[in-house]
Amino acid sequence: MIKKMYTQQEAKILEDFYSFLKFESISSEPSFKPQVEACCAWLENKIKGIGLKVERWETNNHPILFAEYSGAGADKPTLLIYNHYDVQPVDPLNAWKHPPFSPTLENGEIYARGASDNKGQCFYTFQALRLLMEANGKLPINIKWVIEGEEEMGSDSLHEVIKKKPERFRADHMVIVDMGIHNLQSPAVTLGVRGIATMDVVVEGSSTDLHSGSYGGVVYNPIHALVEILSKLRDKNGKITVPGFYDNIATLSQEERDDLNIEFNHEDFERDFKTLPTGGEKGFSPWERAWLRPTLEINGITGGYSGEGFKTVIPAKASAKVSCRLVPNQNPAAIYQSVKKFIEESAPAGVKVTVDGEGWGSGVLSSSKSAVAQAFSRAYSNVFSKPCAFIMDGGTIPIITELAKASKADFALVGVALPTDQIHAPNERFGVERLRLGTQIIASALQELAQ
Amino acid sequence: MIKKMYTQQEAKILEDFYSFLKFESISSEPSFKPQVEACCAWLENKIKGIGLKVERWETNNHPILFAEYSGAGADKPTLLIYNHYDVQPVDPLNAWKHPPFSPTLENGEIYARGASDNKGQCFYTFQALRLLMEANGKLPINIKWVIEGEEEMGSDSLHEVIKKKPERFRADHMVIVDMGIHNLQSPAVTLGVRGIATMDVVVEGSSTDLHSGSYGGVVYNPIHALVEILSKLRDKNGKITVPGFYDNIATLSQEERDDLNIEFNHEDFERDFKTLPTGGEKGFSPWERAWLRPTLEINGITGGYSGEGFKTVIPAKASAKVSCRLVPNQNPAAIYQSVKKFIEESAPAGVKVTVDGEGWGSGVLSSSKSAVAQAFSRAYSNVFSKPCAFIMDGGTIPIITELAKASKADFALVGVALPTDQIHAPNERFGVERLRLGTQIIASALQELAQ
Repeated sequence: MIKKMYTQQEAKILEDFYSFLKFESISSEPSFKPQVEACCAWLENKIKGIGLKVERWETNNHPILFAEYSGAGADKPTLLIYNHYDVQPVDPLNAWKHPPFSPTLENGEIYARGASDNKGQCFYTFQALRLLMEANGKLPINIKWVIEGEEEMGSDSLHEVIKKKPERFRADHMVIVDMGIHNLQSPAVTLGVRGIATMDVVVEGSSTDLHSGSYGGVVYNPIHALVEILSKLRDKNGKITVPGFYDNIATLSQEERDDLNIEFNHEDFERDFKTLPTGGEKGFSPWERAWLRPTLEINGITGGYSGEGFKTVIPAKASAKVSCRLVPNQNPAAIYQSVKKFIEESAPAGVKVTVDGEGWGSGVLSSSKSAVAQAFSRAYSNVFSKPCAFIMDGGTIPIITELAKASKADFALVGVALPTDQIHAPNERFGVERLRLGTQIIASALQELAQ
Repeated sequence: MIKKMYTQQEAKILEDFYSFLKFESISSEPSFKPQVEACCAWLENKIKGIGLKVERWETNNHPILFAEYSGAGADKPTLLIYNHYDVQPVDPLNAWKHPPFSPTLENGEIYARGASDNKGQCFYTFQALRLLMEANGKLPINIKWVIEGEEEMGSDSLHEVIKKKPERFRADHMVIVDMGIHNLQSPAVTLGVRGIATMDVVVEGSSTDLHSGSYGGVVYNPIHALVEILSKLRDKNGKITVPGFYDNIATLSQEERDDLNIEFNHEDFERDFKTLPTGGEKGFSPWERAWLRPTLEINGITGGYSGEGFKTVIPAKASAKVSCRLVPNQNPAAIYQSVKKFIEESAPAGVKVTVDGEGWGSGVLSSSKSAVAQAFSRAYSNVFSKPCAFIMDGGTIPIITELAKASKADFALVGVALPTDQIHAPNERFGVERLRLGTQIIASALQELAQ
């Protein structure tokens, strides 16, 4: 039913989706604030249009949308749904095949920043609600739908709001529609994600750039200090050397482990990314390293001259961006403090090293036995016509711990993003077919939860 | 006499100097080629204007000017003078107080890219010749003056030309006017410079950027591989760990050592650069490390996201620029091969590391007893009214070995650049007073050499 309606209306649906993608809603870059606001206003208007009550909550930064539907009646459960409408920066711009905010269809994939993360998944959630309303004049269950604009920068405002009015988020079930599956043959519900602590590392030497001929061997080169410090953060087995880093980390029970499908498809990986899964700690399989083990990654580094040709400079300054992905029971703020201390204490004489925290979130793991996990598992099975697995994801949804606490609900993480969607990278994309599949999954799960 | 003439004409001299500085003659960036050519044409015209015969030698890249004067007569010696008219890139542009190609006078200093390195020193050389011609209708000695346009990128074309017609460079004495003194109270002639080998290091991982949540711990992050490799190049005592790096390096005789003033002014250094001289090998004093010991420096590093906010990416690629400063008897090409081998063999599984050579030059050391070193020493003494020291410099003039060989002449390295000139850095500058002092030194030395 939903599939047929979707197919008939597909041209109009895609047109609307393109409108959503055209907003340059980059939350972390202050100059894009007007575009973030315009994107939010567009979305608010769309959701109001299908009969949901929508509140726009102003914050210290980007607005949050909170939509409600209670027309299913008091005997039906309430599902809290989470999405975000903000997107990552687009750097390096010249690596994009198509301009990141001019959605372009090529071989069944729509190329645009946010196409997959998270506008695509937000938009099919909207389509599911819209088509269910159109089909039945009502939704099968009650809905609270929160769509924030700061996911890509740490969700500060939503944290604030949840602290101030947790009761607004109270629900029977919760679903985070910001997740993926390994491939289109492998339906799966995600039970947990890792946490995160991010930080900026700055190394300063002389008050000005110096000539590496005249002063090479005299001053301590900040780039050299930086690479020495960063290289000390992991040992040769990929273990993070920061004292206390692995203290108290959660390990899975045999039952929890048995529920997870940790099989790693080497063939897919090598075909998709042209490399080998050689990162992380020795002694663990790839998905164990991505789901169950914490990591420390350098996400950016810069210093000195990197243009064409050569410039024999010793820069005054070099810097890096470092993030740790964390597992349940690791306290992100404490991990940040430990890494900061370790890095700052590693500074050699002659340079000054400072570490500033950027943001954090906790790792979480939910049960495969909950009503919501089971309903979505059945929904995936219905749509894909095959059994659905349970998996985890190494990424982070910073807000999830607080949302789970405020809602007092069990949760599942769902979506149809693929590893090849290039989220956070140039040429982000989302499949046209998946926009329909996602719509069907959400609609089916809502019906399952009404049983 | 020269001082008086200079002072009377100073306004016009500065106007001309500004014209020279306005050319964006960045040799290493191909897009600036037309500006390099225009700068060369301007200079050619100026030198012709004072009665020297000028040839413009076309090359595979930027033209070389070769000016000659033989009017002093066969009984007078010929001095080969070297300058360059090309300049370094200007990155980071936003760190400049004034636009780099709009010369701006502030507190007696002229701010512009190339003001010190080497347009200022080239221009006062020109003024010395011009004023001597104007004063006497002739020069006291014969001159060959080579001014190249590729010093900042390795002098490839001049290397070629010297190989093809070495006899054109034959001279009795040679002077490289591309050098500095510690401060305006310390006249000094430089006897030697270090050599160089520069290279680009590129680390490639997956075929595309990846999300550090989903793939952190799965793939080997190219930035992490890069910092690990680079940090292995020096040990904790600042010694370079590449096998064979220190083989056969020259050490000074006690007499050569006694001739050098290696006293390092800690107070000046800390005031000028707001840091401590803690770089390089332990166990050597700062000037020993800069003049007599080879070094390895990272001149640039880049990878991943370095903009505002945070982007949790594992980049497909990271890269660095590395240079070694070399002392006499180190073969730059062999050192490059050793470093390349060491780096490439340090690549962990899952990333590809490539090293490509950029350019090189040998280290050289000349005698303080030569006629040219003695003549310039007297010239500095005349102008500064105090004794002149002999020093070395850690920088590199890649072409010097070949020029010395072709000229068959003893050489000295001279100039009035200061450590605070910010050569190769933002806010490069040169003192108005030093333009006059340089003019006087060149004029005086020419007269000394005529005795």
